[in-house]
Parts: sequence; structure tokens; C-alpha cells
Amino acid sequence: MSIEEQFNHVRNHSLFLCRNLITEDFSLQASEEVSPPKWHLAHTTWFFEQFILVPNQPDYVVKHPQFNFLFNSYYNSLGNRTARNQRGLMTRPSVDEVMEYRNYVDNEMRSLISKKETAILELVRLGLNHEQQHQELLITDLKFSLWHNPLEPKIMDIGEYLDIQEAPWVELKEGIYEIGHEGSGFCFDNELNRHKVYLNACKISGTLVSNGEYLDFMNAGGYENPIFWHDEGWAWVKNQAQKSPLYWGKQDDRWTYYTLDGRQVINWEAPVAHVNFYEAAAFANWKGMRLPTEFEWEAAHKEFSWGSRWEWTNSAYLPYPGFKIAPGALGEYNGKFMVNQMVLRGASVATSEGHSRPTYRNFFHPHLRWQFMGIRLAKSI
Amino acid sequence: MSIEEQFNHVRNHSLFLCRNLITEDFSLQASEEVSPPKWHLAHTTWFFEQFILVPNQPDYVVKHPQFNFLFNSYYNSLGNRTARNQRGLMTRPSVDEVMEYRNYVDNEMRSLISKKETAILELVRLGLNHEQQHQELLITDLKFSLWHNPLEPKIMDIGEYLDIQEAPWVELKEGIYEIGHEGSGFCFDNELNRHKVYLNACKISGTLVSNGEYLDFMNAGGYENPIFWHDEGWAWVKNQAQKSPLYWGKQDDRWTYYTLDGRQVINWEAPVAHVNFYEAAAFANWKGMRLPTEFEWEAAHKEFSWGSRWEWTNSAYLPYPGFKIAPGALGEYNGKFMVNQMVLRGASVATSEGHSRPTYRNFFHPHLRWQFMGIRLAKSI
Amino acid sequence: MSIEEQFNHVRNHSLFLCRNLITEDFSLQASEEVSPPKWHLAHTTWFFEQFILVPNQPDYVVKHPQFNFLFNSYYNSLGNRTARNQRGLMTRPSVDEVMEYRNYVDNEMRSLISKKETAILELVRLGLNHEQQHQELLITDLKFSLWHNPLEPKIMDIGEYLDIQEAPWVELKEGIYEIGHEGSGFCFDNELNRHKVYLNACKISGTLVSNGEYLDFMNAGGYENPIFWHDEGWAWVKNQAQKSPLYWGKQDDRWTYYTLDGRQVINWEAPVAHVNFYEAAAFANWKGMRLPTEFEWEAAHKEFSWGSRWEWTNSAYLPYPGFKIAPGALGEYNGKFMVNQMVLRGASVATSEGHSRPTYRNFFHPHLRWQFMGIRLAKSI
Amino acid sequence: MSIEEQFNHVRNHSLFLCRNLITEDFSLQASEEVSPPKWHLAHTTWFFEQFILVPNQPDYVVKHPQFNFLFNSYYNSLGNRTARNQRGLMTRPSVDEVMEYRNYVDNEMRSLISKKETAILELVRLGLNHEQQHQELLITDLKFSLWHNPLEPKIMDIGEYLDIQEAPWVELKEGIYEIGHEGSGFCFDNELNRHKVYLNACKISGTLVSNGEYLDFMNAGGYENPIFWHDEGWAWVKNQAQKSPLYWGKQDDRWTYYTLDGRQVINWEAPVAHVNFYEAAAFANWKGMRLPTEFEWEAAHKEFSWGSRWEWTNSAYLPYPGFKIAPGALGEYNGKFMVNQMVLRGASVATSEGHSRPTYRNFFHPHLRWQFMGIRLAKSI
Repeated sequence: MSIEEQFNHVRNHSLFLCRNLITEDFSLQASEEVSPPKWHLAHTTWFFEQFILVPNQPDYVVKHPQFNFLFNSYYNSLGNRTARNQRGLMTRPSVDEVMEYRNYVDNEMRSLISKKETAILELVRLGLNHEQQHQELLITDLKFSLWHNPLEPKIMDIGEYLDIQEAPWVELKEGIYEIGHEGSGFCFDNELNRHKVYLNACKISGTLVSNGEYLDFMNAGGYENPIFWHDEGWAWVKNQAQKSPLYWGKQDDRWTYYTLDGRQVINWEAPVAHVNFYEAAAFANWKGMRLPTEFEWEAAHKEFSWGSRWEWTNSAYLPYPGFKIAPGALGEYNGKFMVNQMVLRGASVATSEGHSRPTYRNFFHPHLRWQFMGIRLAKSI
Repeated sequence: MSIEEQFNHVRNHSLFLCRNLITEDFSLQASEEVSPPKWHLAHTTWFFEQFILVPNQPDYVVKHPQFNFLFNSYYNSLGNRTARNQRGLMTRPSVDEVMEYRNYVDNEMRSLISKKETAILELVRLGLNHEQQHQELLITDLKFSLWHNPLEPKIMDIGEYLDIQEAPWVELKEGIYEIGHEGSGFCFDNELNRHKVYLNACKISGTLVSNGEYLDFMNAGGYENPIFWHDEGWAWVKNQAQKSPLYWGKQDDRWTYYTLDGRQVINWEAPVAHVNFYEAAAFANWKGMRLPTEFEWEAAHKEFSWGSRWEWTNSAYLPYPGFKIAPGALGEYNGKFMVNQMVLRGASVATSEGHSRPTYRNFFHPHLRWQFMGIRLAKSI
Repeated sequence: MSIEEQFNHVRNHSLFLCRNLITEDFSLQASEEVSPPKWHLAHTTWFFEQFILVPNQPDYVVKHPQFNFLFNSYYNSLGNRTARNQRGLMTRPSVDEVMEYRNYVDNEMRSLISKKETAILELVRLGLNHEQQHQELLITDLKFSLWHNPLEPKIMDIGEYLDIQEAPWVELKEGIYEIGHEGSGFCFDNELNRHKVYLNACKISGTLVSNGEYLDFMNAGGYENPIFWHDEGWAWVKNQAQKSPLYWGKQDDRWTYYTLDGRQVINWEAPVAHVNFYEAAAFANWKGMRLPTEFEWEAAHKEFSWGSRWEWTNSAYLPYPGFKIAPGALGEYNGKFMVNQMVLRGASVATSEGHSRPTYRNFFHPHLRWQFMGIRLAKSI
Repeated sequence: MSIEEQFNHVRNHSLFLCRNLITEDFSLQASEEVSPPKWHLAHTTWFFEQFILVPNQPDYVVKHPQFNFLFNSYYNSLGNRTARNQRGLMTRPSVDEVMEYRNYVDNEMRSLISKKETAILELVRLGLNHEQQHQELLITDLKFSLWHNPLEPKIMDIGEYLDIQEAPWVELKEGIYEIGHEGSGFCFDNELNRHKVYLNACKISGTLVSNGEYLDFMNAGGYENPIFWHDEGWAWVKNQAQKSPLYWGKQDDRWTYYTLDGRQVINWEAPVAHVNFYEAAAFANWKGMRLPTEFEWEAAHKEFSWGSRWEWTNSAYLPYPGFKIAPGALGEYNGKFMVNQMVLRGASVATSEGHSRPTYRNFFHPHLRWQFMGIRLAKSI
């Protein structure tokens, strides 16, 4: 695809994801962690405006002077912004006005892209990858917010729970491995520098943990025995009175989960999703195994199939050797989140086409589980 | 007006108040204390359905079985309900569906009203007064929620701040007075029984406190001196870093306030609004005076003009002698709130026509101020 | 007793209450509402120093310049003070130093008292009544704090639970009654002015509610049915998962309560204690009755026996007509607490001898129950 | 030293640290993170009783059946325990009783040690290292708790702030290094297994950051510019209104800090202490450098002097390859804390003699700073 085609494709895909929403849904925000669809649509547009058009398009007129305040996500160096938990309160600008904003910026962007300046095309690629990140969030945020509605509406079917193909364990030999992005394709700054790590021998499961296996853990008293849990995980279990993955519920002795396609009976052969790091690690402990590190995962990834779940690793989100923060506001993209978060590898059913790669590092706080987070086991040899 | 005309008039007025809203605004809820417009429209409809149609209209079919859960406000005896702070999350049912719900119930109600059964007409009057209470809340809730939007939208002009007419102090003689509702007109249960109280002599101001007088209090260090404040009021000032009434702001040395008609320069001759009980009492202390009791207010009300502000009294919200809680869920209407709240008397610019009367007892927690709450002074003689 | 004898008696009684404490106990503070014994001993001393010696004793040298900060309770106009929830952190000054402080101030006070100046003797009487209030708190605070210790230590036996004497209902006739303190004896400012109230006819129980009657309420599902409760009371029941009075526990199907003399089997004939206003009101509702107002209680008190429990009334704590706040810091004694609290009448097993009288107004927030709070029923006729 | 001598030495040292405390101080606890001295003395004793005497000493009689509940720190598998923030409420058992408990257990331990059973001596060494960890906490907890007392008492002089010796930067070559404990000496489970890591070339400062250098950061607006901070660090700065290290204060334009020997004027040549991970990382960013990883630190440690400050690294606290959790309750010692914490290397002025070694891994949540935490800089080459 040409860069113009890519641009149109990605921008249109965001709208496509909203095809079944009613106007009311666009402002929906059920917690601080999630954002309303309208905000995702506007923020990704603001990103193009603020980082590409304003500095590079001569005579560019910003669509609305207050949109910088309204749709900045977390760039402290770009000034104040709407409190994260109040994004749902922005009923104005309307959905129509946000669509107009998208059109306005898209037209300006197309004109700028047509100049084919390398530095700008780099930024365009960043903007499109940024938008794809938000496409995934749009889906998972929507699922989380709609789940609060007792009517449990159906919005789309993205194949959340499909059967797992059984596959053998993968063995990794002790030695030096190269980790991190290589080549000229797009990557985020946190995937660099490519560097050497020394790994001990280990085995990694070729198959993700299934809903059925996770139920075994629950039935074996997994949520009642502190010995399997991190201390903070155990506190989370007790304080939140948790007993199962997010969205699971038991009705008349039958386990169900809420999906974007409505509430469904659980498919026990499908890979478990919506567990947090504490749950993933506790499950692994119960099995007498552990989670892989992100380095083991990357070193072994060619030997197993992946892509339906973001997979928790036992690696904290930290900079690679020689990691450099970009100058200016774009420097706030990744580095400042490198504390108290765990790395996930892979991709998920909500990941936009073309957005995943083996060196991609996703990261979340260990207690969160509204993404399609799953479990792959490992063991030292 | 006939009861049919009243019914149509009140029901239409709720819609009229929403005339300038866009679809997005109907779900807006900025705090637990306020509700979204859509919820007000649906809840007042549910009230007719649940308390009148279901028990009295043979063969009545409820519009949607889950609406009882969605639109119950606080009637514990009618089952579970949406958490108060999550009313804004109910993007479904849509605004259109709520309008349909209103039409459906209105038609059924009209058919029931036409039977002219006295007991039912009593309930209809309660339902209409209930809706009028929510009309006032719809206005004040909307103001509060829209204020959170940096765009500060304009929605309507209800004449929030008009000049005060100066009037002399009213003197009340010591003796026995009759308090509470009398006659056959509609009143809430908390206005009964009419009973005798013994009052000492006092004077009550004929005029409400103006914005200019309140500014004098601010300029005299009113918010910096604990001696004027209740202990809890002082804690509120300190914890919230408060220095002025709600909605006030200073821009370039000029005081302004947010109104439903947008941000405006303050009119110093108009009656102050949006102060809480702590602020009202502190102002009175600073003046060397006090707030009237609700009994003094009612005994003297014929001698002064009122109706633009709800006026804080120094009376706690408590039952009158012989107060009886109605049997069934309607018994939850008033009695269970009779602790930790202060009484306000009068009415406000947001009160629907025909909804105010001298024995009306409004009540709020002392720290709240999103209603059009004002100050009238009194002094013992 | 002469004023000198009274002074010695009250001051010694505070120490007598601590006779079984070990040094460690003197700093014990289990919540913001309660204070450590050492703090009570020091604060009551500081009261004499700050309000009597400093202004009236020429050449008086304050014992320690920082004690004003350390032992001020809530007098905002006297400067900053230790945060209320950090009183237990003041391990220095030591218990010995506080005892020395008491001796130092006592000697100075005795010398000042011997001058027999009327204005000062007035203040001394206030100081002694103030100390007696703290003696009651010292007992109830100690009980609450020690209850947190799994060893459940025994400290003293004050006869917390003695049998009730059955007595007939008292009838009150409709009419005007005089309420408030009369005569030249000591009273607090909140008992003035004596004034007329108009009361409707009612009946008041001659007997307090017993533990056995309260158990009936519990067994009848009192804590499971919202219909009996204030809305805030019901929220308290649910949020705190409450099912019985404070200190009650069930061991092997046997109900017990913690007392200052250790854990004991419940005496079902003794008056219930440690219920809050919500519980008292819910119990009364369940009985189809109500709590008396403080005016009804005072008007009828000669006809029933009282003194073992502080009795909740359905009156909010508000000023009497003509109530005046004293000038200076002593003006902070009572008036600033007149919001969001309910009045209790009577006295309790923890009240110091000579400290109770029929016009005494005690007051607490409706959710609190660490005092010996009980229930007396009333009903309108 | 023989194991008997070591036992006596370590046990006595705990008491020596309390030499200037008064009885009241022994129960002092100013926050959930810190524990009272009495608790440290009892808990370290309980550790010997529970993990060594109970399973290994035939006929051993536990001193008091409830001490397991009172003095268990966090071993979930050993049953319930006192809430961490309520340790200061345990005024009983008294200090004297805890001293008796120590004597009782010490005598039993000496008799058991004299049998010279290898497995038991292993456990004794663990118990002594455990007690030394608590000796450091006892000092830092005491400092934190006493700081809340406006009298700012002096307790001991441990040389908190001595001048730094300037030393050159240390260069580390790219390649494979061995990390983790080696040999037969004592180490904790988290220092194993010894394993290979691949490191890129870097330089590590031979000198710790001084108070003076840290002041430069403050004066350069370090606490006002988000660009230097992790996102969570910036939120911490804003929410807590932080502007300097813990214990620092400015009086009459002069910077001071609270020490265990009272408040003192800051020594600008001494190494900064009491900064958290966010502050350490922000300082490094401001310098255009970074913190070392724990692996770089360990690989280079022979080339620089260390021991007065715990030094923040940019490594998250995670298991080494092949890390194994011990069976039983001792398995809760370290592994369950391996999430959301950062590693510190070195030792501090509060570390007991003989307790530090180069492979020692200390760890704390990134926002904490009541330990003597300092900063050593690194840079990639």
C-alpha cells in the first residue's frame, strides 16, 4: 500500500469500528482507564494536527483553539489538558463536529503527504501507528464501558473466543540472543536499541492457557490460597473479592462471559482472556511453572503461533540499552511510563491488521485486565 | 387548568427544558449528586408507570422489564437500581427510546386519568409535583455538568441574576404560630401535620443578600477567619481551598460567573446564589446576625417577597409532630432523608410555575450548593 | 464542697481513672474520634493554663512553649495544633512530664483560686466541667482503643451493664413548656436561653430498651430491611456490613460484648448501649414508635429514672433562641458544632459524679457509637 | 565469631539500638510502612520461635499462644495477623513482657544452638540476618515516626551525613558478566542463582550525588519541569506538593534536615539521602545521564566505594534465572514481593555491621524514601 492508501485505510478503519454505535455511545467512559470513542477519534486527529500540521504545514489554521486542551492525552510539555477521568463529560464538541474535525485535518494531511518529504512521512507513519494503538483501545474501552449497562448491548463480533490449536513445547538453548527491532520498518522507540541478552535454557508452551484450564485453577481453590500469589496480588484478590477473570459470571450454575457480541456461554477450548498479571502469575505458580520473560518470548516466538491475546511476561517495562528519549513532546511517548508496569508480548483479536510485530512491547499496570490479556507458560530446565 | 391539562402541561415542560440540548448532552453526569437529562426524563416517567399504572391499570404491560432497575432513584423497597454515580453510563436506551417510553406511558396515563377516580387523581398530582421537582433538578444539574466543559456552552436564559428590590425588615412578635400546610391543595407529607410552635420575637430581612454584599464578606477575609464558621464549614473551606461561591471566577481582575447562558460579568445588585449552608451561616455571623429558622420564615413570609432563591434556614430537616410515613414504597419519599440535612424555604428561578408554596420544605446537605441557594438574614430582638 | 475541694477532687479523679494503666497505654489512640489518656490529662491541664493562668496570673510562666501546639484540641483562634489523628504519636513529652505539668499547673491554680475572684472562679468551674467531660471521654476512648488489642485487656469495672427497673409510660400533655437551664448553678452556653416551646401530647417510655429487646430486632431482620432505616443509616449498614451494636460478637452461638472489665456474656436484662442514631431510630421504627425530641425528654424527665445511658433524641443540635457565642477563644466551645449532630440527653455510667443535669445537651454525629448510647422510645398520641 | 557469639551479638545489638528510648517510644508508629520498636523486638523473636523452636525443639512451649497473631509480619500461610497499620495499638504486651519474651526465646535458642545441627544452624543464620534487616528498619522507622513530633527529639548519632570522597568514573566493558551470590557464605534466596548477563559498555560514577548537587537540581526548577520525570513521578510531585527530599525544611532562608540527632544545618558535601526512585531518576535525567542497572552496579562495584546509602538502580525487582521459592512459610520471604518494586544496591549508615555484601538486593516501592536512599549516576558509552 502506498502511504496515501495507508493513511486513508487507517483513518477509515477508526470510523468503521464505530459503525454500530448510536450518538449517545460516543461519550461513554466507565472509568479513568478507558476513554470514550469520540475522544479516541478526536485525539488521534489532534495528534496529526499538533505534531505534523502545526510545525510543518505553512499557514495551517488549527481547527479550534481549545481542542489542544480538550484532546491532549498526556503530553505535559504541551500544556494543560482535560482530566483523564472527565473525558466523558465533553458532550461538546458534538460527534458531528469531531467528524468535521477529522475531515478537515485529513484534507490538510493529504495535501502535506503529497509533498513526500521523508521526515514528514516518518511522522505520518508514527501517527498511523498511534491511531492503530487507539483502535485497539477503542474496542477494549467500549467493551468495558458497555459492560456497565444492565442491557449488555451487542456492538460487533470480532471473534473474541476461538478454539486453540494444541502445539508442542518449544525449547530454548542457553546462550546469547539478539533482542529488539531490526531493519528499516516502523517501530516504536521502546523497541530499540537492538542488543544482546544472555538467556538460560528454558521451555515455552506452544499453546495459550485455555478457559477450561483456568477453570481448573479456580476449582482447585486458586483464589483462596495466598501461596500462589504475589503479595500485592493477594491484596487485590481480597480487597476486590475477586474469584474469576473479568466479565465472567455464573448464572444458574452456568458460566458465561460478556463479549462485544453480548453475553455468551463460555467456550472452554478458547484461550483465557481478561486476566491481570497477578492472576497470570498465580496460575503459573499453581502449575509449578512460571511466565516467560519478554526476552525468552522474543527469542522463541518463531516456534509458536501467537496473535489472539496479549501475553503477560515476567519482565518489567524498562529501557533497552542505549534507549534515547526523542527531543520535544514526542519524547513523552514511551519512556516516562517505564516504571511499575509489566510487558506483554504478542497482539490480540482487537489489534488492527498490520500493527503487530515480534518486537512490539505492550505494557500495563499489573492489576489491569480490560485488554485481551492471556497466559503462556514457561519453565526453566 | 383541568387535571388533563395539567398533566400535558407538566409533561411537555420537561421536554421544553431540553429544547437546546444535543443528543450527546442527554447522558451528561458530572458528579454523583447530579443526574443526566435523559435519566430525569425517564425516571419521572417510571414514577407514573410504577406507582400508578402497574397497580391500577388492568392489563398494563410495562414498556421494558429492565427499566425498573434502570430508572429507580432510591426506592429500596422496589429492588436494586443503577448506582447513582453511574446514571451517565446508560447510553442505552437511547434518547429516542426514552421519548418513546414517555409517549407510551403518557397515553396509558391519559386513558387512566379519564376515569376520574379520586385516589388515582391524588397519585397523578403527586406524580406531577414529583416531575416538577425533577424539572428544577434538570436545570441545576445541567448547569453543574456543563460547567465542567471548557467550552462553557450556552443552553438557556432563565434570568438567573436579576436586581433585588430593597425592602424593610419584618418584625415578628413573640407567641404561638401555626406551621405546616392547611387546606385541600396538594402538599408533600413533610409539610404535615399543621401544628403550633412558640416563637420568640425577631426581625427578618425583607431583602436577600446581594452579590455585592457577599463580595464585601470575601474582601473582609471571610474565607480566612475560622471564627465565623461552623467547625465542619471551616474544614470544608480548608480542604476544598474555597474562596467564593460556586461558579465564580476571576479573569483579569474581573469577577465573572458561569450561567446557563454562558459566562457573564457579575451583577452586584442581584441576589447571591450557589452558596452552601456553611457559607450562608458564616456570612450571617460576620454580619453579627443569624439565619432565620424555617418556622420564623413561614410565620413572616407574607411580609417579604421571595421566589428567586432557595433560602437557607437554620433548621435541621426533621419531622413535624404527628408526621406519618405512607405505607409501601411511597413511604420512602421524604421521611428517610430526615437526618443531616438543612431546610431551605422559598423557591428559585429554576422552580416550575405553580410548584412553590409557603409551606414547601426543600432540604440539602449543608455542603451542597449547586441549587440556586441564597441568604436571608435574621436577628433576635 | 468548697471550690478548692472540688478542684482537688476533679483533678485527682482523672488520675484515679488511669490507676490500672501501664505507661504504654497512655499514648494509645485507635481512631481519629478518640484521644490517648495522656492527651486527655495534658489537654485538660492546658485548658486551665491557657484560659485562666495566662490571662489572669501575673508573672505566670508557661510550663513549655510548645504545649499550646501539642495540647490544643480545636480552638482555631489559638493557633495551629497537632492533627487530631496524630495525638497518639506524641510519645514525648513522657507520661512523667505530663504528670509534672499537671502538678505545676495545679499549684499555680490553687494559688490563684485562693484569691476568690468571682470572674476567675466562674472560669475554674468551666475548667472543672470541661475536665469532667474529658473524664467520660477518657473512659470511652480507652474502651474503644483497647478493644483493638486481641488480648482484650481488663482495665476497670464501672458497672456498664446492670439490670433495668421496669417503669410505666409517662404521658405528656399538649401545651407550652419551659426548656433550658434555670438558676445560678453551672451550665454550658448551649443550655441557654431558657425559653418556651409548644409541645403536642405524647407518651415517653419509663424504661430504656434492653439488650434482649434489641436482640429481638436483630432476629426479626432489622439489619436486613431498608424500610426501618434512614437513607444514610441504610448506607452505613451496607457499607460497614453491620449486624449488631458495637463490641458485640458471637462465639460458639453465644453473644458476648467487650467491656472495660473484659469480654462478657451479654446480660439481656440490661439496657442496650453502643448503638448509633441510625440504629436507635431504626429500632423505634420497627416498634412502630419514634425517639423523643430533646424538648419532650426535658419536659418529662422528672417522671422516669435516667443516668446509665446517653439517650438519643430525634432533635438536631441547634442553638436555643437568644444563644450567644462568648467572645474570644471560649466562644469556640459549643456553637461551632451546631450542624449535622444529634442531641443526646441524660448521662451514662461513665459520667463523673455531679456532672449530669436535666438540661445537659450532649451531641454526636449520627453514625458514632463508642459512647454509652442507649434508646428510650416515644409515641405521639 | 562463633555462631553462639554471633547470636548473642545480634540479639544484643537490637536492644542497644533502643538505649535512649523511653517506654512510650516503643509503641510509636507514624504510618503503615513503619513499625514500632517493640514490634521489631518481638517480631524478630517470634521468627526464631516460629521457624526454629516450634518445629525443632522437642517439648518447646510457646511463650504465649496469641503472639503468633500479634507478631507475624506477612506470612499468610501462618494464619491471620495484626493489621500492619495497627501495630502501634498493641500497648499490651508491655515492653517488659516483650523483653521477657526475648529472654525466654534466647535461652531456648542457645540450648538448641549448642546441639550444632547443621540444618538448624542454617536457620539460625537466616534468623540473625532477618533480625539485622529489622535493625535497619528499627532505625529508619524510628526516625520517620519521631519526625512527626513537633519536639523533634534526639535519639542517637549514627553519622548520617559525612563528607563524600571524590573518585573517578568507572568504565565497564561490553561482555558477559556473572551475577549473583557465589560461595558458601550466607545469602538470601533472591541472590540466587548466580547466572550470566550480557552488558553493554557504560560508565558508572565513583562518587554518590551530594546534597549540594541535589540543591542545584532543585534550584534549576527540577520539581517544576515534567520533562525530567516518570509520569507517576510527576503525579507524585503534584499530588504531594513535593519540592525537596524527605526531612528537608527551610527556616529563615537556611536549609536544614531532621536527623536522629535532631534538626541540623545541611552539609552540602555529604551524599544526598531520603530521595525516592522518581527523584533519583529525575535528577539523572536532568544531568543527561541515567541510573545504573543492578547488574552494572554489581559488575563494577569493586571499582568504587559504597556503604553509606542504599543506591537506587533502574532495575525492577525480579527473580534471577532458576530462582526457587522455599517450601513452607519461609517461601514467603522474598519471592512474593517481586512486582512493582525497584532494586537498591549497597548498604547504608543504618546497616548493621557484617550485614552488607555486593550481591545483596534491597527493594522498595518507587515512591518510598524513608530509608537512607541515595543516587549514583551512570551513562551509556
